[in-house]
Amino acid sequence: MKVVRSISELRLEGDVGLVPTMGGLHAGHVFLFETARAESDVVVASLFVNPAQFDDQADLARYPRDEEHDFAVAQRAGVDVLFTPTPGEMYPAGFSTWVVPGETGAEGAARPGHFRGVATVCLKLFAIVGPARAYFGQKDAQQAIVVRRMARDLNLGVDVRVLPTVRDEDGLALSSRNVLLSPDERERALGLPRALESAVGAADPVAAARAQLNGLEPDYVELLDLDGATVLAAAVRIGSTRLIDNVVVKGALS
Amino acid sequence: MKVVRSISELRLEGDVGLVPTMGGLHAGHVFLFETARAESDVVVASLFVNPAQFDDQADLARYPRDEEHDFAVAQRAGVDVLFTPTPGEMYPAGFSTWVVPGETGAEGAARPGHFRGVATVCLKLFAIVGPARAYFGQKDAQQAIVVRRMARDLNLGVDVRVLPTVRDEDGLALSSRNVLLSPDERERALGLPRALESAVGAADPVAAARAQLNGLEPDYVELLDLDGATVLAAAVRIGSTRLIDNVVVKGALS
Repeated sequence: MKVVRSISELRLEGDVGLVPTMGGLHAGHVFLFETARAESDVVVASLFVNPAQFDDQADLARYPRDEEHDFAVAQRAGVDVLFTPTPGEMYPAGFSTWVVPGETGAEGAARPGHFRGVATVCLKLFAIVGPARAYFGQKDAQQAIVVRRMARDLNLGVDVRVLPTVRDEDGLALSSRNVLLSPDERERALGLPRALESAVGAADPVAAARAQLNGLEPDYVELLDLDGATVLAAAVRIGSTRLIDNVVVKGALS
Repeated sequence: MKVVRSISELRLEGDVGLVPTMGGLHAGHVFLFETARAESDVVVASLFVNPAQFDDQADLARYPRDEEHDFAVAQRAGVDVLFTPTPGEMYPAGFSTWVVPGETGAEGAARPGHFRGVATVCLKLFAIVGPARAYFGQKDAQQAIVVRRMARDLNLGVDVRVLPTVRDEDGLALSSRNVLLSPDERERALGLPRALESAVGAADPVAAARAQLNGLEPDYVELLDLDGATVLAAAVRIGSTRLIDNVVVKGALS
């Protein structure tokens, strides 16, 4: 696996699959790497904690970072090139052009500027890496659909693939932020996937999920139309950690 | 010359030079086509009156359109492929992702949303056509620099070239909108280039130009820092036609 830190060093040819990540790699990322590996000549992972998509500077500061661990995980999963630029390489002085997706509610409303940061960094990564396909996890379903909409609207020629959420045995969706939870918080966090799962098939899934949150305080619980699928999505705060999760209630994300 | 109306029909290989236009082709465009011809294996011109960059619907409605004339001019100038999509091809239902450049004053302030429309359509054209170089005229200097900034910020790998303004013998900058002027208006329009030219070297070029406008009402007269060059730019209204022009007062645009 080659580690590349500057844009000018990156020279790629052939059919490329890209997995954009912010590090904190876990089995959900590995699933994306392995799928990209099976479908692509060259697998590129990016590891960049993108400051532009954090609306909360404290959240950015405490976001998990462990380069050594992440390099080992990516290498084992068959990544060919790990692109890990500095913030200054991605946002040099004078940077002033943003990619702004349409309003989407839920994460878009709860985190002003978040999807602007996501769309901008993904467009830059697509332009730099030139992938045929890019891989996202369903846990961040809105993000994936924002990026897919961008790719279509701006004729980027990138197929945006959404793969199922990977969960721990007890049902908690894997997230880089899970390592920030205390054992007690981790236990309480199970209320999120359980509430969502129990609401599938309810007449009013939002009300049903809210009623089952077991004392967790939601940022939002919303039904979203994501590229034809209906998704029940929620965000909760547990201590100083914010977690999101979602389930498909109708149709399919892929 | 091949005329292509749909994105899916467009298949290009090799070193491509792109000249984005809104039609109404004149000798300024021909200069861009010929320069692209000299520097590129394949010359693509786009002809698309981009609704997204018009803040004024009346201006969009009366914008000059003459496809037959434009095809002949492009063909004679050595254009290989003329890409002329419909608005629905470029902005299909559900379109919602915009490229938003930073604030730039002058045209950006006078025409809200204008550079958003310019940046978005140029990014789409770059993604569709895949040019190594794109050619713009200095008459629309701010536009060219907005697009160059976008190409750098978003790592598009497109060299944005700015070529000198082509003028009629009496000094009026060529513009697709000039055909909308009556003979009397055309005569009065000469006040714009004359005022700008006379202000070069003045201690206060903005005041000097304003004093020489010969009764023309300016939307703005501004000194702009454009990628290192200092440019004196102005917009005036003559009847129902709006014209812009500029001169370099320090440094060079290229």
